[in-house]
Amino acid sequence: MAQSLSLPSKKAGLPPGTLVHVGTAPAQAGRITLTSYTNDHCHEKQVQTLEEILEHRRPGNTLWVQCEGLDIIEMVEAIGQRLQVHPLVLEDILNTHQRPKFEEHDNCLFFVVKTLRCTHDLKVDHEQISLLLFPDMVFTFREQSDELFHGLKQRLNNPSSRIRSLGADYLAYAIMDLVVDHYFVLADTLEDIIENIELELMARPQPHLFSTIQMLKRELVFMRKAITPIREVLLAVQRSEHPLLQDRTRPYYRDVFDHALRVIDIMDSYRDLINGMLEIYLSSISNRMNEIMKVLTVFATIFIPLTFLVGVYGMNFEYMPELHWKWAYPLLWGLFFCIPAGLLTLFRKKGWL
Amino acid sequence: MAQSLSLPSKKAGLPPGTLVHVGTAPAQAGRITLTSYTNDHCHEKQVQTLEEILEHRRPGNTLWVQCEGLDIIEMVEAIGQRLQVHPLVLEDILNTHQRPKFEEHDNCLFFVVKTLRCTHDLKVDHEQISLLLFPDMVFTFREQSDELFHGLKQRLNNPSSRIRSLGADYLAYAIMDLVVDHYFVLADTLEDIIENIELELMARPQPHLFSTIQMLKRELVFMRKAITPIREVLLAVQRSEHPLLQDRTRPYYRDVFDHALRVIDIMDSYRDLINGMLEIYLSSISNRMNEIMKVLTVFATIFIPLTFLVGVYGMNFEYMPELHWKWAYPLLWGLFFCIPAGLLTLFRKKGWL
Amino acid sequence: MAQSLSLPSKKAGLPPGTLVHVGTAPAQAGRITLTSYTNDHCHEKQVQTLEEILEHRRPGNTLWVQCEGLDIIEMVEAIGQRLQVHPLVLEDILNTHQRPKFEEHDNCLFFVVKTLRCTHDLKVDHEQISLLLFPDMVFTFREQSDELFHGLKQRLNNPSSRIRSLGADYLAYAIMDLVVDHYFVLADTLEDIIENIELELMARPQPHLFSTIQMLKRELVFMRKAITPIREVLLAVQRSEHPLLQDRTRPYYRDVFDHALRVIDIMDSYRDLINGMLEIYLSSISNRMNEIMKVLTVFATIFIPLTFLVGVYGMNFEYMPELHWKWAYPLLWGLFFCIPAGLLTLFRKKGWL
Amino acid sequence: MAQSLSLPSKKAGLPPGTLVHVGTAPAQAGRITLTSYTNDHCHEKQVQTLEEILEHRRPGNTLWVQCEGLDIIEMVEAIGQRLQVHPLVLEDILNTHQRPKFEEHDNCLFFVVKTLRCTHDLKVDHEQISLLLFPDMVFTFREQSDELFHGLKQRLNNPSSRIRSLGADYLAYAIMDLVVDHYFVLADTLEDIIENIELELMARPQPHLFSTIQMLKRELVFMRKAITPIREVLLAVQRSEHPLLQDRTRPYYRDVFDHALRVIDIMDSYRDLINGMLEIYLSSISNRMNEIMKVLTVFATIFIPLTFLVGVYGMNFEYMPELHWKWAYPLLWGLFFCIPAGLLTLFRKKGWL
Amino acid sequence: MAQSLSLPSKKAGLPPGTLVHVGTAPAQAGRITLTSYTNDHCHEKQVQTLEEILEHRRPGNTLWVQCEGLDIIEMVEAIGQRLQVHPLVLEDILNTHQRPKFEEHDNCLFFVVKTLRCTHDLKVDHEQISLLLFPDMVFTFREQSDELFHGLKQRLNNPSSRIRSLGADYLAYAIMDLVVDHYFVLADTLEDIIENIELELMARPQPHLFSTIQMLKRELVFMRKAITPIREVLLAVQRSEHPLLQDRTRPYYRDVFDHALRVIDIMDSYRDLINGMLEIYLSSISNRMNEIMKVLTVFATIFIPLTFLVGVYGMNFEYMPELHWKWAYPLLWGLFFCIPAGLLTLFRKKGWL
Repeated sequence: MAQSLSLPSKKAGLPPGTLVHVGTAPAQAGRITLTSYTNDHCHEKQVQTLEEILEHRRPGNTLWVQCEGLDIIEMVEAIGQRLQVHPLVLEDILNTHQRPKFEEHDNCLFFVVKTLRCTHDLKVDHEQISLLLFPDMVFTFREQSDELFHGLKQRLNNPSSRIRSLGADYLAYAIMDLVVDHYFVLADTLEDIIENIELELMARPQPHLFSTIQMLKRELVFMRKAITPIREVLLAVQRSEHPLLQDRTRPYYRDVFDHALRVIDIMDSYRDLINGMLEIYLSSISNRMNEIMKVLTVFATIFIPLTFLVGVYGMNFEYMPELHWKWAYPLLWGLFFCIPAGLLTLFRKKGWL
Repeated sequence: MAQSLSLPSKKAGLPPGTLVHVGTAPAQAGRITLTSYTNDHCHEKQVQTLEEILEHRRPGNTLWVQCEGLDIIEMVEAIGQRLQVHPLVLEDILNTHQRPKFEEHDNCLFFVVKTLRCTHDLKVDHEQISLLLFPDMVFTFREQSDELFHGLKQRLNNPSSRIRSLGADYLAYAIMDLVVDHYFVLADTLEDIIENIELELMARPQPHLFSTIQMLKRELVFMRKAITPIREVLLAVQRSEHPLLQDRTRPYYRDVFDHALRVIDIMDSYRDLINGMLEIYLSSISNRMNEIMKVLTVFATIFIPLTFLVGVYGMNFEYMPELHWKWAYPLLWGLFFCIPAGLLTLFRKKGWL
Repeated sequence: MAQSLSLPSKKAGLPPGTLVHVGTAPAQAGRITLTSYTNDHCHEKQVQTLEEILEHRRPGNTLWVQCEGLDIIEMVEAIGQRLQVHPLVLEDILNTHQRPKFEEHDNCLFFVVKTLRCTHDLKVDHEQISLLLFPDMVFTFREQSDELFHGLKQRLNNPSSRIRSLGADYLAYAIMDLVVDHYFVLADTLEDIIENIELELMARPQPHLFSTIQMLKRELVFMRKAITPIREVLLAVQRSEHPLLQDRTRPYYRDVFDHALRVIDIMDSYRDLINGMLEIYLSSISNRMNEIMKVLTVFATIFIPLTFLVGVYGMNFEYMPELHWKWAYPLLWGLFFCIPAGLLTLFRKKGWL
Repeated sequence: MAQSLSLPSKKAGLPPGTLVHVGTAPAQAGRITLTSYTNDHCHEKQVQTLEEILEHRRPGNTLWVQCEGLDIIEMVEAIGQRLQVHPLVLEDILNTHQRPKFEEHDNCLFFVVKTLRCTHDLKVDHEQISLLLFPDMVFTFREQSDELFHGLKQRLNNPSSRIRSLGADYLAYAIMDLVVDHYFVLADTLEDIIENIELELMARPQPHLFSTIQMLKRELVFMRKAITPIREVLLAVQRSEHPLLQDRTRPYYRDVFDHALRVIDIMDSYRDLINGMLEIYLSSISNRMNEIMKVLTVFATIFIPLTFLVGVYGMNFEYMPELHWKWAYPLLWGLFFCIPAGLLTLFRKKGWL
Repeated sequence: MAQSLSLPSKKAGLPPGTLVHVGTAPAQAGRITLTSYTNDHCHEKQVQTLEEILEHRRPGNTLWVQCEGLDIIEMVEAIGQRLQVHPLVLEDILNTHQRPKFEEHDNCLFFVVKTLRCTHDLKVDHEQISLLLFPDMVFTFREQSDELFHGLKQRLNNPSSRIRSLGADYLAYAIMDLVVDHYFVLADTLEDIIENIELELMARPQPHLFSTIQMLKRELVFMRKAITPIREVLLAVQRSEHPLLQDRTRPYYRDVFDHALRVIDIMDSYRDLINGMLEIYLSSISNRMNEIMKVLTVFATIFIPLTFLVGVYGMNFEYMPELHWKWAYPLLWGLFFCIPAGLLTLFRKKGWL
């Protein structure tokens, strides 16, 4: 089992609400990047403490704090104390075994989503992204530090971009949109894999295909488990009447909800495709086996009467007139060709070959 | 995989709301046809700009703007600006990978539906139709320009037709009705295909039927995915209390909803039929295989004791009295006919043949 | 495919609301029978026009208009105009490809239900019954004219019958009850068929049973599709607060709803029974095949060592002492009996026979 | 088919509401037992008419009227007239083919439930119990007269029992509780049967087990159909705000509802167990068959090269030096032992034996 | 069947509400431990009677009464009388065959949950924990007395722990959290088992694996039945507006609800994994069988023409020129090597080997 499904025992026995990093990846050295932007300017810097961040809070300014690597327990504790975040939220941020969810709190909204990446040899890579939305600030928490948010940062640097003027809830939307767009990339990869398997299946079904399809089916189960809860998350966002979600950003959340529905649809189709491929595989394997057995059985059946005949003339009776005929032996060889020919014609006529 | 399920990467990395045509068909040169009608008159002309269209807006006049080919980004942008349509709607119009949906906006309603055509050799052709309904105007957007709306135009040209007097929301209904009616045409084609396969199955099950049935099953999965969401679309329309939907057109929407339910019922029956055919195919293939193996095995079994007997009299013992009997050889030939006859009778009595 | 599932193309291209008869049966010459009854009297006559019918409207009088054969387009049009029935309802009456449904209109209620009859050789006969309920009138529309309503008419002729005093909504209930009762008759027929198949299955599974079961399964799919929507129809009736449904008839509608639930339960059980029979059939076919193959293989296996032995003494070596022993040949025959006996004993002990 | 699922034709053609006994058991001579109790006393007597019963009505007194055998049409009619019970309720009491249900009427509550008993050889016995609850009276109607209510009567005779003081709705609860408790007895019997089959399956799978499991599966389908509706019945009771259900008895109804949920859970588990057993049976049958075929094939394969060899030395060529060697024959016998030994070793090494 | 599913007959015939211990484990000698704590202190002692417990009730003090072993009927009765607990609740506490549930009463809340433990050889151990929550007291009832609550007691002894200051409803939450955390431990064990089976499957599928997988599948059915109802329990808790649940503990209940959802997700994945393993097992068994049969059949097929040939030259015809050729015999041996070589090449080319 590549990815472990259940909560490792690291947390067992501790009281709920204890801040410990629980995850599959080793906690990387934490790196905290602050992006502060208004309509007019946008600058980015590395920070160490919450105080540095809060200094940038001023009217019209939107702050995006990216925490990469979860070895930042002091920062998380500081967020809890200074920004009155519930201890259970802090715990959920550090424990990357959460289900995707959306929680409304008095002063903030809390999102947990999963990104999924998949290579062509079916190595799947999960990551949890936690997001805290305050009126003028968005905190994102991840275990890894890679190029996931690259496109988003470029858009933030573009002064004419819509994102610069629409505030923190739009930024949160843009991150959700990015996550859902990554599911489409995943779907593209899966489609490639499925297409390749289909081509191989058509060419010649081979045992290794069976295990590939089974593995694909299995990975798809986990992917769907990771992706489908985002539907409820986004539905809950849409239905929420929390003042942090402004009316002008609601259509965007509806749009990303539609995308999520579509990607779930696609995933469901893949499951159907994979089941169809399994059926085709099993049926064609059994067909080929049957073909082989049939041909070999026909082959054996044709020799059976011949073997009987040669046995007959191998008998040692005193009175067997044929044995003394001059042309008996060549005639028999004639029979040896006629009988198979006749049987083959018969079998072919009956559609057995 | 004939049709690609997932969003091509063309759009990836762009901010949401960017207007780019994303679709499977190459964007054709856009052709925009304006049909303007009242109770009294109806005329049609090709237009280039939104201004030309808006000139025809006057009380009692209903405008239908057909945009064929989606290479009309300026037009779409103009609609967005002049008619205050939300940027995400514009984006959805140009991106033909939407799920069927119904959105209520303050000043307009937005529908997305899919038409499906299928040839007898299971070539399936999808098209997305987007529809914007304003109080006195309907915009339809398609990638292709064919005869789909032909019948509707004829009815518009008929002065006594109900459509001439019932306004824009009735026109929108008429288009939805047309789309659902096309599903019935699709169902007819599928029924023909299924009927042909059933006849072939009864005549003689052959391997190519298996792949045909599997392909049919697979296409049906995609068709159902394209068609079933129209149920929710039409349900949402019925429940909507948007002022753009007048009371007198509501029964019509309920009627097209009933039709949609029926076509989905039919599609579900086809799935059951196809699964039944698969079962029949597999069972009859296995039956035939078993029959062949059984006959060949019986054939071999009959020769086995004969071959033993000829072996017996091929032995070289000094003292084998039978070898010197005059009638031993002819008698043995008698046995060679009696034993198979006896065994065949026995097998037939046991019901093995 | 015996019954066509989808809408024939006759209607395609026509505007919605055009009155054309669309059905599987040829429209018979229309026959319209008016039954007019009060507590005191009940008489029946053939009528031609709506005017003749409306003459009988008077307080305390309940009218039942049976339209048999749908070649009565003028009558339907007259109903539409004189009684303000919505054009789509008229269209649905003439088009017998409706789903069962219940529609509330301001001045009338509209029901569509399906009757089903089935002969013992699985010839299934569908018919659509449309029913229009006005405060003092019930119109029923059917394609055929047979004895379906016979029992109901007899009850109308009986002066002490409850039906005489309870008005038009009770008459509508009585018709629904009749339809649901016919489903029980259908269920009885199916039960007979299933019971016969079960008996044949127990006696000896034969290939024709497989296709019978498959056909039965398939017909059941269509029957359930025709019957189950009546549940929603009757539920909608129960929940309706339309003034045409009086409080005193509501318990009756609840009762027929209970019956419908029960008949749907029964149909579901039949599906389970049929699937069970398919499993039993397939398993017993495969069992028998295995038995045959096993016996034949054992038979062949027993002769194999014997054939080897006779081969041994057919060899031409110079120095084979056994060949010159006097009792070798009879002893060998002894072996020819002992070896099979030994092998058979062994096989039997191992449970292979 | 042991129990008939559908309504026998006895009732067909009769108007709804006609009082005729419709059931599987022959109507026994009706026996009506009246139990009248207060906190202080409790006595029981046989009665003939409703008048006798109504004489016992007095404040503080609770009456339980047990009608056993449904040949008591006059009594039922009298109940209808004197106690204003709806004719459809009376009809449902006499027709024992009802679905379990709960109906609220102005002056009474009507329950229909099913008891089920099952012997160890899977003979299943259904019975319908109808119950009419009035403010101070409970009528129960059954076809049979056996010891079902024995325990309840004993509790009624015990002056310190809670049932003596809690009135008619508690009595109705006690009867429902008794019925649900009988489902647990049924579940115990089924568990025994399943356990026996499991033991037999482990010992040695035999064909008769297949039909036993199939029969069990089938009976379970009917049992679940009879039992599961009680969930809705008891849910409806809980949600009912009818004044006949007092607040102090509501927790008891919730308790019996919990029991019903649990018994349905158990039944669902049995279905899973039975399906698992079927899979195990089929798999072990196919395993054994494969084992046999494999051993026999290996056996045949071992003799094939030997038979070839003896054939070689049976040839009549003039120049075959081996034939004149003195030790050729014994050496060959050596080979006849070495070749099988070698092949067996090879097969065993490959894991084929 | 390891664990009995249904209610043993011990309780049958008794009136509802009778206090008898009904369970699978023998009732141990009851041990009652009282833990009394405030912000400042926490002490624990063994008690015998309810009076001893109630003496510790004082403002600010929270009492936790652990009843281990259910042989404490007097205590339960005392609770019923002194604390006005409904008799059915008392009965449910003593009968350990309850479904997990949550009941709101006027003066207390009642929880029933199940703990599950599983060893690596699939011995599953159920236990029912009943919990009564009063404003300042929590009673827990279990059959066994082991270390389950050990961690919780340690946290209670820690003066800085949140649990010390948050009252009785937080204590109830902490117990629920502990139970759900134990499900994760169970999931870990199952994951280990599944992983081991997968490794064995990959190495070599053996019959005992089939029964292990089937047993695992079966145990999982029971586990899911025991675990999934906790979802409804915790949902009901969340929706409850009972004053005993304070606002500050509600987020904690939501958190444990999320955990429960996740553990149920994991259990569902296990079911998918197990079904996948079954498919792989069956497919690989059938693959291996087919491989063996194919190789043996090819082997037999290769010897068939050879055996025919040696038969030919064993015939006794007078005029068989080959018999007198000097090199015929060695040439034939050449053929005996060429024919198999040729056939093997052919078979290999056709992909049969």
